[in-house]
Amino acid sequence: MMYQSIHFQSKGRATTNASNPEVIRKMKEIVGEENVWVDPQKVEPYGADAVKEKFPPEAVVFPESTEQVSRILKLANEYRFPVTARGGGVGYTGGAVPIEGGIVLGTDRMNKIIEINVDDLYVICQPGITTYNLQKEVEKYGLMFPPDPASYKESYIGGNIAENAGGMRTPKYGVTKHYVLGLEVVTATGEIIRTGGKTVKNVVGFDLTGLFCGSEGMLGIITEATLKLVPMPEATATVRANFRTMEEACKVLTKFTPLGILPMAMEVIDKYCIEAVEGSFAFGLSKEANAILLVAVDGSKEEVEKQARIIEEIIRKNGGFDVMRSRTKEEEDKLWDVRRAISPSLTKYGELKINEDVVVPRSKVPELVAGVEAIARKYNTFVANFGHAGDGNIHVNFVCSRNPEEIRRARACVKETFELAIKLGGTISGEHGIGYVKAPYLEMAVDKPTLEIMKAIKKVFDPNGILNPGKMFA
Amino acid sequence: MMYQSIHFQSKGRATTNASNPEVIRKMKEIVGEENVWVDPQKVEPYGADAVKEKFPPEAVVFPESTEQVSRILKLANEYRFPVTARGGGVGYTGGAVPIEGGIVLGTDRMNKIIEINVDDLYVICQPGITTYNLQKEVEKYGLMFPPDPASYKESYIGGNIAENAGGMRTPKYGVTKHYVLGLEVVTATGEIIRTGGKTVKNVVGFDLTGLFCGSEGMLGIITEATLKLVPMPEATATVRANFRTMEEACKVLTKFTPLGILPMAMEVIDKYCIEAVEGSFAFGLSKEANAILLVAVDGSKEEVEKQARIIEEIIRKNGGFDVMRSRTKEEEDKLWDVRRAISPSLTKYGELKINEDVVVPRSKVPELVAGVEAIARKYNTFVANFGHAGDGNIHVNFVCSRNPEEIRRARACVKETFELAIKLGGTISGEHGIGYVKAPYLEMAVDKPTLEIMKAIKKVFDPNGILNPGKMFA
Repeated sequence: MMYQSIHFQSKGRATTNASNPEVIRKMKEIVGEENVWVDPQKVEPYGADAVKEKFPPEAVVFPESTEQVSRILKLANEYRFPVTARGGGVGYTGGAVPIEGGIVLGTDRMNKIIEINVDDLYVICQPGITTYNLQKEVEKYGLMFPPDPASYKESYIGGNIAENAGGMRTPKYGVTKHYVLGLEVVTATGEIIRTGGKTVKNVVGFDLTGLFCGSEGMLGIITEATLKLVPMPEATATVRANFRTMEEACKVLTKFTPLGILPMAMEVIDKYCIEAVEGSFAFGLSKEANAILLVAVDGSKEEVEKQARIIEEIIRKNGGFDVMRSRTKEEEDKLWDVRRAISPSLTKYGELKINEDVVVPRSKVPELVAGVEAIARKYNTFVANFGHAGDGNIHVNFVCSRNPEEIRRARACVKETFELAIKLGGTISGEHGIGYVKAPYLEMAVDKPTLEIMKAIKKVFDPNGILNPGKMFA
Repeated sequence: MMYQSIHFQSKGRATTNASNPEVIRKMKEIVGEENVWVDPQKVEPYGADAVKEKFPPEAVVFPESTEQVSRILKLANEYRFPVTARGGGVGYTGGAVPIEGGIVLGTDRMNKIIEINVDDLYVICQPGITTYNLQKEVEKYGLMFPPDPASYKESYIGGNIAENAGGMRTPKYGVTKHYVLGLEVVTATGEIIRTGGKTVKNVVGFDLTGLFCGSEGMLGIITEATLKLVPMPEATATVRANFRTMEEACKVLTKFTPLGILPMAMEVIDKYCIEAVEGSFAFGLSKEANAILLVAVDGSKEEVEKQARIIEEIIRKNGGFDVMRSRTKEEEDKLWDVRRAISPSLTKYGELKINEDVVVPRSKVPELVAGVEAIARKYNTFVANFGHAGDGNIHVNFVCSRNPEEIRRARACVKETFELAIKLGGTISGEHGIGYVKAPYLEMAVDKPTLEIMKAIKKVFDPNGILNPGKMFA
């Protein structure tokens, strides 16, 4: 099975000035012979991300310092070839993929933690560390870096910042941009700039830090980040329950806030996902379960215990059945097994899975899911929905074969799903970004004058269009 | 006593094309006769903010809709006159002051709440509502808008967004930009753009929402904001204690996080503030008190009770004495009286008070305060420090007479304080912004390539330099 965008076809290897032997020689001078790869077999894996379409770069270059990144970018401007920054390379919209050729700039060697400041609650790190490793390091000091995209074991923090990654903890903790205090960035022209600083409060000049979060490697290459940390909560607990309808499950989402409870995570799973996981793993879920709701809280032991009890009660009162509440970390892990089993279970419905991540105000999730189901019926395409109901960010998975007619229908489903999300007050991407995959749809979500401003900002940072061409506005 | 910048002198009324009778007539056509003020007496108050220097505008214009704002800005571009947006007009750096003349665009008539969405935790409002009124309205639904600048009863939400206002709750809740989900903005050229949306997750194009937060009215005029809300905590409590040294008081700040406690607010008051309030209000504070620490927590009743007890204990163990913990809302209010008494008490030390708001990583606060005292001694100038120690944002108050020599010395103190804050890993403004007051110092905190990018972004939004000229980069 392949995760695929179906919006674009690989064009094979592009050729630009990056292949010029003089350029290759100069790049080797900058980063060292062994850190410039041109062997087609070696560079091939750097031409794809989780979308799995291949656009092999002409070379992959691994700098180890800000100064080397700056020199590479100056060279790229002199010779005019594309530079696409790449972290873990596990994005869903092609953000790290060199669709117009040129070089991939891999941040793999820039993977150090520079400082963990326990007293001042920040960490300074390079872009090439995985978010998981970063979390593990700060946990040693009783601290937490909250953003937790599903790919956090493979994705690099640089990529997470460039994509403004989300995850499950958003209802309580927000997204990546809420934790970026300061950045060192090399702009497309090779200038090294520093935005923000080490403090949450900082109102000195325009907020460029926020602008780089989610800029998809199009404005500059992040070479160092200062990130805010929070105290590690003492405990967590999860309540899982079945519901007879998705609407019932989602109605519960809004019932905790009035009691002063802000769950860390609230996830839903629809009936097609349930069928799929039951078919593959036989969890023994009730045949009456047409939706599953998972609610997680964190905090002090007593507070977590108390909140989980209240959540359990509210769920029971509002149509939830087979309600389970975790008492231990192991029990909690087990409750999440169903959620983790979804992706591998959907394979049986077709070879291609189109994983979209529309977002709507959370009270509109039932309407979104019902609408998506109607769209799928209209185009006779299989769809399964699950995801971050607590922040309205639903993963809509259309699954089909490689038959062109089926792909055409799935594509029509995607477009109508975007239209629906916008109609419901949401937008076309909550956490995956635009890349090249969603670029054809950007104008559905962003009006023309706003788009013109974005394009003009791109020009400020990258007058020659060196950085990650073919993305977002294509 | 006057709050004063001492960095700039009023130049009297400037004259631009805004005074052209044709322009005045056209503005009246757009917003109505009674909403264009030109009478020098009526417009005079619109020429100053909390800095109290006067730069009277040529006219004050009160639009009531986005469309009217757009038409005014198109007119300003056609006739080339400055437009300075103004909310409550209580800023500390002159952000709302028309120092190069032109018109002040008052958002007073755009003061409506458009939607409070309890289920989806957001409020949509116009820019001209005070942050206090906004908070009161959402509180009716059990919700909280956390940013709480000291001026919140007078400052408008539009101004708070444009200045990315802070306040006391930052250690737990962050600053204004963390609560802005989406904006409608009229750019300098009169284009209406829409950034972000209604959801926390939104990665569709560059994050212009963040860029407008703290842009000081230089990139566009905010005409509508969608703001994130959180559940109102059930309870709050405050612990207040005296310390023999500021260093002792500040050392306690970092002792709560390792226990999983994230106080909502942590404020310090230095010995000069204590002397001043004691002299004016006779609170009966101990003669041994050279610093006061206030720590506030919020959450469920039990959690607040428990955390406040732990905080009390830690404070006692670490040199705190005369420790008081609030059991009721009334007791809590009383504990904060000392903090509120500071500003009116400092008047006796001189006619001019220069209120700076440098910020450093919080563990550096003792070093900052000691350094500022040394600077004040060097220049024989009175200084008193208090403020948001929990986020490192200290209000440094130099007080002097109107004697030019004293002013010269106070000015030298300010410059060295900025140098010290930067040396300690902080910056020159935590929450007041740059405006014209701190513009001469911007280059101390922002390096040249970063500054050039900021200036280029300004040009993208405002090619003719219509919006709030003379600020930030002057």
